[in-house]
Amino acid sequence: MVDIGPPPECWTRRHLLGLEELSAEEITLILDKAMVFKEAMTAGRKKIPLLTGKTCVNLFFENSTRTRTSFTLAARRLGADTLDFSASTSSLSKGETFIDTAKNLEAMGVDVVVVRHRTPGTPQLLAQNLRCSVINAGDGPHEHPTQGLLDIMTIRERRGSLKGLTVALVGDIAHSRTARSNIWGLKKLGAHVIVCGPSTLVSPRWAEIDVEYSYSLDDILPRVDVLNLLRIQFERQFSRPFPSVREYAHLYTMDAQRLAKTKDDILILAPGPINRGVEVTPEVADGSHSAILEQVTNGVAVRMAVLWLVAGERGKGEGGCVAAGLAPRCSSI
Amino acid sequence: MVDIGPPPECWTRRHLLGLEELSAEEITLILDKAMVFKEAMTAGRKKIPLLTGKTCVNLFFENSTRTRTSFTLAARRLGADTLDFSASTSSLSKGETFIDTAKNLEAMGVDVVVVRHRTPGTPQLLAQNLRCSVINAGDGPHEHPTQGLLDIMTIRERRGSLKGLTVALVGDIAHSRTARSNIWGLKKLGAHVIVCGPSTLVSPRWAEIDVEYSYSLDDILPRVDVLNLLRIQFERQFSRPFPSVREYAHLYTMDAQRLAKTKDDILILAPGPINRGVEVTPEVADGSHSAILEQVTNGVAVRMAVLWLVAGERGKGEGGCVAAGLAPRCSSI
Amino acid sequence: MVDIGPPPECWTRRHLLGLEELSAEEITLILDKAMVFKEAMTAGRKKIPLLTGKTCVNLFFENSTRTRTSFTLAARRLGADTLDFSASTSSLSKGETFIDTAKNLEAMGVDVVVVRHRTPGTPQLLAQNLRCSVINAGDGPHEHPTQGLLDIMTIRERRGSLKGLTVALVGDIAHSRTARSNIWGLKKLGAHVIVCGPSTLVSPRWAEIDVEYSYSLDDILPRVDVLNLLRIQFERQFSRPFPSVREYAHLYTMDAQRLAKTKDDILILAPGPINRGVEVTPEVADGSHSAILEQVTNGVAVRMAVLWLVAGERGKGEGGCVAAGLAPRCSSI
Repeated sequence: MVDIGPPPECWTRRHLLGLEELSAEEITLILDKAMVFKEAMTAGRKKIPLLTGKTCVNLFFENSTRTRTSFTLAARRLGADTLDFSASTSSLSKGETFIDTAKNLEAMGVDVVVVRHRTPGTPQLLAQNLRCSVINAGDGPHEHPTQGLLDIMTIRERRGSLKGLTVALVGDIAHSRTARSNIWGLKKLGAHVIVCGPSTLVSPRWAEIDVEYSYSLDDILPRVDVLNLLRIQFERQFSRPFPSVREYAHLYTMDAQRLAKTKDDILILAPGPINRGVEVTPEVADGSHSAILEQVTNGVAVRMAVLWLVAGERGKGEGGCVAAGLAPRCSSI
Repeated sequence: MVDIGPPPECWTRRHLLGLEELSAEEITLILDKAMVFKEAMTAGRKKIPLLTGKTCVNLFFENSTRTRTSFTLAARRLGADTLDFSASTSSLSKGETFIDTAKNLEAMGVDVVVVRHRTPGTPQLLAQNLRCSVINAGDGPHEHPTQGLLDIMTIRERRGSLKGLTVALVGDIAHSRTARSNIWGLKKLGAHVIVCGPSTLVSPRWAEIDVEYSYSLDDILPRVDVLNLLRIQFERQFSRPFPSVREYAHLYTMDAQRLAKTKDDILILAPGPINRGVEVTPEVADGSHSAILEQVTNGVAVRMAVLWLVAGERGKGEGGCVAAGLAPRCSSI
Repeated sequence: MVDIGPPPECWTRRHLLGLEELSAEEITLILDKAMVFKEAMTAGRKKIPLLTGKTCVNLFFENSTRTRTSFTLAARRLGADTLDFSASTSSLSKGETFIDTAKNLEAMGVDVVVVRHRTPGTPQLLAQNLRCSVINAGDGPHEHPTQGLLDIMTIRERRGSLKGLTVALVGDIAHSRTARSNIWGLKKLGAHVIVCGPSTLVSPRWAEIDVEYSYSLDDILPRVDVLNLLRIQFERQFSRPFPSVREYAHLYTMDAQRLAKTKDDILILAPGPINRGVEVTPEVADGSHSAILEQVTNGVAVRMAVLWLVAGERGKGEGGCVAAGLAPRCSSI
C-alpha cells in the first residue's frame, strides 16, 4: 500500500484557475500525483484520508452532473466533506451578490470552492476575494483545467509522453473551454496541436500562438496521433454554425471509414457527454482505440491530485509519512 | 454487540432486479440478514461499516423521497458514500444515452447503482451493461423488490412465518410494481395471495399463476390474515378507473367497520405515502393492527441487507469476523 | 485540544422551538458551548465527533441555502450524517400529510429534524408528534431561534455581556422571525431593545412587552450600541409597505454619514443575505464596525451547540471524558 505524504513544497498555488498560467513542471506534478492516486484506487484502496475535516463546496451556476459528481467523489475519497450549492435555490435569488455568497461559504469554514459559471473570469474574481482555495470547473468558453488535465493524463498514460505527438481537437473550438485548456497544456508538454472544424467554429488566428488549424478532418487524419472529439453543444447554440447536423456528421463524424485512414495506434478521446452519431459513431466510441471511459476514471484521479495539492496540510507531521509515489519531487522541477 | 462477517458464499448475485427471479432460500437469506441488521440498529449500533469506501448512487428518474432516503440511510449506516444523481440536471438533457450515463458513473468507481425508472426492464438493461451492482428501486409497473421484501419482512416478524397465511393486496393492482413484487415473494414463501380491487384494476388472468382475485373487499375480509392496502396513485392516472374517490372509498377504504369483520389478529400494511381517508382511515392506520411505520423501519434494514449482499467484500479477512447472526447459513439453503 | 463531554444534565430540552420559551440560563449555556466549539474549530480541529451515527434531516419547505448549509456543516463537524429532504420532490406532492412524512423519517431512524416552514407553529406541531428532536429553522414570521442566538453570540463576543446594551433592530419588523427571536433573547439577557422602521412595518404594540419603537433611525442612532439591519424581503412582499426602495434607503440605509453619528464603538450586524445599498452600503458592510461575516461563522458554532445539546448522548461513558470547556456547568445555572 502506498503511503502518501504532504503536498511537495514546490507546489505553491492555492487555486487552480487555468492551465495557461501553469508551468510544464506544475502540470507534470499534477499528472504524476494523479497516477499515484489512480494506482492506489485501482489497487482497491478506496479511501485515502488526506483531506479529513476539510469541506469542498461545488458552486455550480451551470448544470453539470458529470464534473460535479467527479469532484464530489474525488473529495470524498480524500476524506473531505462535500456540499452542493445550488444556484437556483440560493440567496442569489434574494439579491445577494456572487462574492457575498462565496464569502459566506468561506465564513462557514469551507476550504475549497469548486466553481462553474458561464462568465469567463469568475473563478479569478473569487480567488481575489477569498482566502480559501478556488478551483475552476469551467468558466464560459475560457478554461476547464481539470478536463484538460484528464485528457492529457489519458494521452500520457497510453503513450508515455506528450513530446512530439500530434493532437487534433475536432469540433466546436470557438465555444470550447475544454479546447483552450487542452491547447495550453498540450503545448507546454511538447505536443503539436491542430484545431479542426467548420470555418465558423475554427479561427485562423490560432496560428498566432503556434496552433495549426484545419477545416478538413480527412486532410489531417493520416498524421495525427490523438483525436479529441469535442461535443457539439446543441443546448448552447443560438445561431447555427453549420447548415445541419447531417452535414456536420458528413464532414467530421469519426466513423469506421475515417478510422481506417488513421495511424494504426490512433488514440480517440471525447470529453463526454457524447452525441453518438454526431461526433463519433458507436463502433468507434466503443472500439479498442477509444479511451473515453478511461478519461472518466482519470478525471477522478486528476481531481484528487488537484484538491490535495491546493488544500492538503503541509508538513504538519500528521499523515506526513513520506510516500513511495507521492514523495516531494521538487528537485526534478 | 453482534459481529458481522462477509456475505455468505451461497449468495452469488451481483444485482437485485426483482423477486420473480429469486428462490425462496435467497429471499429468506435477505430477510434473516435484515433482521440481524435491524436488531443491531435497535440495540443502538448506528454504524456497521461493512461497505466503507464503497459508493452507492441513486439514479432516480422518477421522484421518490421515501425510497431514495431509505436507500441513502441504509448505505450510510454501512459506511458507504452516497450520491444522488438527478435526472433533470444530468447529461441526459445534453443528448447522452442512458447507458452511457451509467457507464460514466461506473468509470468513476461507483459500486452500486440504485435505479428507478418508469420503463420496465431498465434495471435489467443496466445490469447487462455494467460491471457494478444494480438494484431495482422500481421499474414502471414491473417490480419494486425491496418494497416487496420489507412488506414480507414485516409480516414474517409479526407472524413468524408466511406459510399458510392468506394475504390480500387491495387497490390498484394493475399499475402496482409493489403488488407484483409482493406476489412473487409471498407465493415463494408459501402464502396464499388474493388481489382485490375494482374490476378495472384487477385482472382475472392473475388466476393463471394461482393468485386469487376478488372485486369485493367485504367478501374476503373474514378470511384474510394480512391486508396490504396499496396507494391509489392519483398523480399517475390519466383515465379514471373508478367513478369517484368517494365510490372507491365506499367499497375499499379500510375503516373501523370493516376492521370489525376481520380476524382478531389481522395485520394491516400500507406502502406509503398513504392517502388518509382513501385506502385507510386514520383510526385504522394509527391503530394497533397497523404495522405501517414498522414497514418503514424494516425498509432500511432490508436495504442494508441487500446492499451488503450485492456489494460486500467476500472473504478478504478484514471485517470478516464470523458473526453470531450473520454467519454463513448456506447449509440451510 | 479541548475534550468535550456529554451535554450537561441541566439541559433537559429535546427540541429548540424558539427563544421565547428559553430561560436566560439556557440561552447562556448554548452561547457558552458555542464559544467552546468555535474555539476548537478556530484552533484547527475540524471534526468533533460527538454525534457519530446520528442522522440530521433538513426538512425545508422554504428555500434557504445559507441556513441549510450552516446546519449541514454543523452536523457534519459533529460527525453526524445529514440529509436534505426537498419538499418539491417529496411524498407531500402525492397527498401525504406533513406529519406522516415526518413520522416516516423518524421510523427510518432519523435523530434530528431541522424544519423550516412558512406556517408559524409547524415545529411545535412536529415536536408534539415525534419522539426525535425538532429544531426550528424558521416558521413564518414567528421565530428563527438559531439566527437570534448567533446574533446575540456575536454581540456578546464583541462586548462581553448583553447587560445594559441598547440594541436596535432596523427594517421589516412586522414580517421578521429574526426580529422576534432577537427580541426574546436580547431582553432575557438584559439588553434594551428598540425596533425601528417605517410605521407600516413597526407596530406601537411592541411597547406592551417593553420594547421601544421608533420610526426614525436618525433619532435613535446616537444612543444605540448595536444595530441589527434586517433584510427587506422583496421576494415576499405582495403589497408595498413603503413608496419606493429609494425612499426606504433615504430613511433607513446605514451609510457612512449615519455611521458618523453613532457611538465610536457601534457594532453593525445584518442577518444575510444583504441587499447592498438598501439596508447597508458596501463601505459600512465591509467596514471595521461590521460583524456580518463573524455572524456567519458563529452560526455554525451555535448550531453545533444546539445539535449537541438536543441530540448528544448523555452519560453513556463513551465520548464522555469531562471537558475543559464543555464540562457541565449546571451549578452556575
